[in-house]
Order: sequence, then structure tokens, then C-alpha cells
Amino acid sequence: MFSKEKIVQLEVQDVRYPTSKTLDGSDSVHTDPDYSVAYVTLTTGTGVSGYGITFTLGAGTDVVVKAIELLKKKVVGKSIHDIFTNYRAFYRSLTQDSQMRWLGPEKGIVHLATAAVTNAVWDLAARLANKPLWRFVVDIPVEDLVAMIDWSYTSDVISETEIVEMLSEGQSGKEERIKELEKDGYPAYITSVGWLGYSDEKVKRLTNEKLGEGWTAFKMKVGISQEDDMRRAELIRSLIGPDNKLMMDANQIWDVNDAITRMKQLKKYNPYWIEEPTSPDDVDGHAQISQALREHNIGVATGEMCQNRVMFKQFLKLHAMQFCQIDSCRVGGVSEVLAIMVLARKFGVPVVPHAGGVGLCELVRHYSMIDYVLISGKMSDRMCEYAEHLHEHFTDEAEIKNARYVLPYKPGFSCEMKKEAVEKYKFPDGSYWQN
Amino acid sequence: MFSKEKIVQLEVQDVRYPTSKTLDGSDSVHTDPDYSVAYVTLTTGTGVSGYGITFTLGAGTDVVVKAIELLKKKVVGKSIHDIFTNYRAFYRSLTQDSQMRWLGPEKGIVHLATAAVTNAVWDLAARLANKPLWRFVVDIPVEDLVAMIDWSYTSDVISETEIVEMLSEGQSGKEERIKELEKDGYPAYITSVGWLGYSDEKVKRLTNEKLGEGWTAFKMKVGISQEDDMRRAELIRSLIGPDNKLMMDANQIWDVNDAITRMKQLKKYNPYWIEEPTSPDDVDGHAQISQALREHNIGVATGEMCQNRVMFKQFLKLHAMQFCQIDSCRVGGVSEVLAIMVLARKFGVPVVPHAGGVGLCELVRHYSMIDYVLISGKMSDRMCEYAEHLHEHFTDEAEIKNARYVLPYKPGFSCEMKKEAVEKYKFPDGSYWQN
Repeated sequence: MFSKEKIVQLEVQDVRYPTSKTLDGSDSVHTDPDYSVAYVTLTTGTGVSGYGITFTLGAGTDVVVKAIELLKKKVVGKSIHDIFTNYRAFYRSLTQDSQMRWLGPEKGIVHLATAAVTNAVWDLAARLANKPLWRFVVDIPVEDLVAMIDWSYTSDVISETEIVEMLSEGQSGKEERIKELEKDGYPAYITSVGWLGYSDEKVKRLTNEKLGEGWTAFKMKVGISQEDDMRRAELIRSLIGPDNKLMMDANQIWDVNDAITRMKQLKKYNPYWIEEPTSPDDVDGHAQISQALREHNIGVATGEMCQNRVMFKQFLKLHAMQFCQIDSCRVGGVSEVLAIMVLARKFGVPVVPHAGGVGLCELVRHYSMIDYVLISGKMSDRMCEYAEHLHEHFTDEAEIKNARYVLPYKPGFSCEMKKEAVEKYKFPDGSYWQN
Repeated sequence: MFSKEKIVQLEVQDVRYPTSKTLDGSDSVHTDPDYSVAYVTLTTGTGVSGYGITFTLGAGTDVVVKAIELLKKKVVGKSIHDIFTNYRAFYRSLTQDSQMRWLGPEKGIVHLATAAVTNAVWDLAARLANKPLWRFVVDIPVEDLVAMIDWSYTSDVISETEIVEMLSEGQSGKEERIKELEKDGYPAYITSVGWLGYSDEKVKRLTNEKLGEGWTAFKMKVGISQEDDMRRAELIRSLIGPDNKLMMDANQIWDVNDAITRMKQLKKYNPYWIEEPTSPDDVDGHAQISQALREHNIGVATGEMCQNRVMFKQFLKLHAMQFCQIDSCRVGGVSEVLAIMVLARKFGVPVVPHAGGVGLCELVRHYSMIDYVLISGKMSDRMCEYAEHLHEHFTDEAEIKNARYVLPYKPGFSCEMKKEAVEKYKFPDGSYWQN
């Protein structure tokens, strides 16, 4: 089933976009991000390439690059067959290296590096199988797929037998759901109207523009000045009307009690969720906030900085997240994201992926498709984030039609960047940074 | 009060010891560690130096070094006066950099790098004040000290006012406690008799040797084969008798239910605690294990891989740790460790620092002294870990007398390494690694 061609090379590049100049992506704690990627290229002996990224905010991408170089020897010399016939062992060779695990384990820079490498491995595998990633995944026999994933530290909430049963049930109606996605795509919401560094004028213009395109769910950044947040929320709510969804994102700026106090004031604008109200590590804090806001019908969303399945397990079990925001680059790659989506299904929490950045929209749409086809089988209470930046640098751009993600069809995991983009923005020697 | 000399240089070196050859430090998941440090030297304009380390297990130390180089610009050009008159802002400039925080935040490689840098800053400050670190800290006026620490994300369990009150109470009897430490030192326990890679013969020889030296508390590694663990526990318990303490350390190898099952069998050897029974990220899992083992009088100890105050806050609040094992290099340095010790005091959990490795004994003894003099005021239910490796490479070696840590008296934070040790073991170009 899997290709036996050996991977003979792993190359990695530091690619940075000067987004801090326009304040695209600016929020309460990330005031001047330069959206960037560590970009991995794997090449086989016959010259087939697979591509992987991890997303960063600029400074330190070179450190991630160095961490990726350290992982090179775990990949080069192996074939997709070698890797995928015992993927769990391959994954653990990256995350549980006896010396390197001290640097994490399963968190921070080494885990971002792991994601870039495994994203490239899955991209290559899907290309060799001539399928888009989502299709490649849903076509793997359920028992094989479950055996590929590292479930360590999760057996207190779910057994592998239960997971196999759950996913086997998900096989019924699979082709119908795929047809539905082919026809109508997957629901999306838009973030790029309300970055914190944008003027009211710009927010107004962008919101009207997006309303005109058919968008029905909008996210704004909050967190520094309550007065500004109230004014901006009033502005956006007045533009989108009472029926469209408005989400708020605090990017971790508050302590628990601040979050509760401030959201109780902001509730008059009927927010659908508050995202990252406090530290991404604070399960108990999120549980307190969730409980306090439940009566106001405000959910708590988090996950883009949640480091691994062990943290997600606790957030889910302890009712600390009502929306599960998987990220495609933070948690070590495809198998770990699948583990988290299975846990979310177990606890009945909808998956609403984190996107934006560079390439994140391109990647996460595959996960929403997998969630619908194979895992939750639900779409009505879900949506996948979208932001309008930097898509043009990818060879398989995320496509939106009627404010919904179009089902990707090109082989691979959509991580490949255009050669001219890499040449221009690679850091520090690309033509953009040299000028 | 603080020196106004500018720091003009930050240098960092990768120093590795080939401990994997002797299996010193080997445990269930770290089967072949090469104990290593990223070693920072700060130098002032007048040529005074301060030293800092972070500990690693070998591979990846070069990535930590690169992360430290990225932090250089936050330190060079500042004086100890600049840094210490607003230490909280300085610390947050390291941990909350708008671009770099994506790589953590406050965890993994960037946080290990932060610890190496801040350890050097505190070493330099203490040297310039001509005091050992513990004395330098307990001499800072309480309100100033509290204002130096980043308490964000902790206000749901304790307020700064309460912390000031708590530490102000701790001022009474301070000098008496210091005299007591000068006279009798601080209780210690020993780990280096029971590394997992050691033969029964070696364990027996070392245990007898340490009993002869007056040690009364011993730690063994467990986790792979239950049969081996039972045999080794029986061996050590038979040697040390019923009254001495025996601790067990699983180094994260088990899932929650395995941990409970296996410890219920091992309880016949009367373990005082089980350390790291499962994932260091699993607060809820540790709480389950704690609850199940309570009736057997086995406590749960963890902390050496606990990433920051936010995680410790939850472990403490949710009764998931009965022993709080602070580490001197993982959590971002002195101010963060002080925050964690204050939280432990708030929840009535004893601090029993993690040591061993390279330099960790040299550093953590200062924290136990600070805990006794300033924070908990207790010593009877506490002890500080000790392992017998690599002390000879430091200029201010940890000293043990009657199985207790002697109060350090040399100025600084004891991070300085001997020049010849660095020359020999720096990686990859030191004389040891060249041969």
C-alpha cells in the first residue's frame, strides 16, 4: 500500500513575511508578528518531493530550523512504507528520543519542529498515493489508522478498542458525506476583519465587504482597553446584525477573574465564544471561566497554543473548552491532531480549527473534512477559521466559495510554497530582506 | 542598592558529559542521557563575570544555545540596576516577546534558554553584592521582591497583597533560621544508588556505602519491568531497613491506571512517594493517582518537567502533587521558582527540589535555604535531592556533611564551571569529544 522509495534528503528554510508593517495578525499580546514558517522539503531517490511547514511569528524561526535539522536523521534513509507500517514508533522516535525529550517533552520548539517534519512526511505519502491528505487519511483502514497514533496518557478516558468502534461506526455514510462536501464545501468564519491594530474605519470597510461576500461569522480581537473593545464590538455587531455570529479573541491576556468580569460586560454584544481568555496552560482557569459564562451562553474556545493530546484531554474532560481549536503545526502533526479530534468526539465538543497565519488555512481545511467524513460526522455546529493573508504563496491555495471552504482535491497536504515566494522571503538572504 | 555596571557581553557554550557510557542518570525513559549544560557567561564593562546554566540530556543542547543567543539583545547593554529595579518587566521581555512567545510560551527550549540567562543575571547580581544567592534573595525587602516576580495567571488563587503579608510574617525568626542552617545544614536524600542501568550488585554496594555515610532517604528508578522493580525494591528495603525512607521514580512511563496498579503492588516496600508516575502535563491524571494512593500513604511527587507557575498552580490547587519538585533550570529562573515556592506554601505542599544532572545540586540547595529562611519556615518534612555526579566541575561544589547540604557561602549562584572542565567537555570541539 505504501511507497518503498527511500527519502534521501531533508532541507529546511526560514521564510518570513513582514506582516508587522501592516499589523495583519496583530492582537493583544502579539502586537507586531511577522508571519513566518520553517519550511521542510523531503526528497526521495526518484526525485519526488514532500513539503511540510510549521508556523511561527518571526523571531526564533531559525531556532526551529535548527531543531528540525536535529530530527533529519530520524527521517532520511526511511521510506514511506517504513514509516507508515509502524507510524506510532516513528512518531515516538521524534517525540520520545531519550536525550531530546528533556527539551519538551511534546511541547515548544521541538514539537513545532516535529510538526514540520511529520507534515512533510504525510504530504509526501499522500502525493505518492495521488490523494489529497484528507482522502488519504479517511481511506486508511480504521484499525490501521488507530494503530498508527500514539495514545499514551489517554487510556484513563478512552481505550483503543473504543476508538476502533467509534471510527468504524463513522464508516457508514462516508461516501455520502464526501459528496456533500464536494457539492457545498465546509462552513467557515472570518478573522481578518478585526485585527487589533486596525482602525475602526478599516474594520468597518472590511466587515461590510465580507458581509457582501456572504460571510455569517466574524471574529474580533479584544483584551487591552475594555472601552475600545466595547466600541469595536458595538461597531461590528451593528454592521452584522443580531443573527450573524460574533466571536471574540483575547489571546491569553487576562487572569481568570478579569476574563469573567470583562466578558460579563461584553455579553451585551452577544459573543458566541471568548477565545483564549487566559493562559493556554490553565485548564482549571478555563473551567472556571466556562462555568461563569455558561449562563450567558458564551462558550470558551482554546487550543491553538495547547501543546499536546494530554492537555486537550484535560480541557475536554474538565469542561474547560466548549470549542476545540486544533492547530495544524503546534502539536506534532497529523497523527496527534487525529488523536485530539477523537478525544473531542468522545467528550462531545465541536472541533473548530485554528487558522490564519501562513499556510494554516491551507492545512486545517483537511482536518475539518476528516472530522466530518470520519470522526464526528457533524458539520452544523462547526466552522473552520479563515483569514485573508498570504494564500497566494502556496501552490494549493485554500479556496472559499459562498463563505465556505471548498474541498481540496490536489494530491498532498497543501504545504508546498511557490518557489518564487521562498526565494523572495527566505530569511535573511531572500531578496525582500536584502533590500 | 544594585550595581550600575553595564553588561557588555553574553557568551554561551555547549558542554556535554559522556554519562551514557556509565548509565549514570539512566531511568525508564531516559535510557542513555549525556548530562549537559548550556553555559552562559555575562561580563560587565569592568570585567566582572556572572555565570548561568540550563541542564539538558545531550542532543539538542546546541538548539538551546541558539535560543540563548536570540535572548542576548535583551540583556547586553543593561546594568544589574536596570534589570533589578524592574525585574518583572525584564523577565516578561524574555518570556513575552511578541514574536518569540509563539515558540513557548513559557515552556520548552525558549524557557530553558530563559533560565540559563536569568540564572546568570542573578549570579552576577549576587556576586556584585558579595553574597551567596540565597542570602541575596532573603535580604531583598519583601515588597520589592514581590514586585519583581511575574504573578500573571495566579490571581485566582492568591493576591499580591496576601503574598506580601505571608512573606512579611516570614521575616520573624529569619536570623535564627539562618544560624540553624549554618550549624546543621539542610536535610538531603540520595538518588545515585538506584539508576535503572545499574546492576543489583552495584545498587547493593552503593546503598551500603551510603548507609554508612549516614543517609536515611534513598530513591530508586522504576517503571519498565514490574518484576525487576519488585526485586530491586526488596533489595534496597532489606538493606536500608524499615525506618529509612525509600522513594520511587517512574519518570513518566505509565498511563494513569498502570501507575495505580503497579504502585499498589509496590506498596509492600513502603514507598514514601512515587515520582513522575505519568505525563508531566497531566494534572488531572496526577490527581487521580494521588487520590488512589492516599490510603496507602504513598504521596505523588512531580515538578522537574513541570513547565511554569501556571501548571504548578493547578497541580497544587487540585491535590495532584503532595511533594513539589521545583527545578532550577526549567521554569525560567529565580523569580519563577520563587513564585512556585510561594504557591506551594499557600497550598501547604512541601518543596523537595529536583537535583542531580550537572550543576542542579549546586543550584537548588540555594532554593531549599530560601524556602526555610523566607517562605515556608519549615524543614522537618522536607529534603533536597542529591546525586553524586560531576560536582567536581564547578568552582562552588555542593557540599554534604552528615547527609545534609551545607549552607553555601561563596558569592553568587554557584553556576560557575572550572575553565578546564569547559575546555575538555565543550561540544563538539573540546578535547574529550575530539578524541
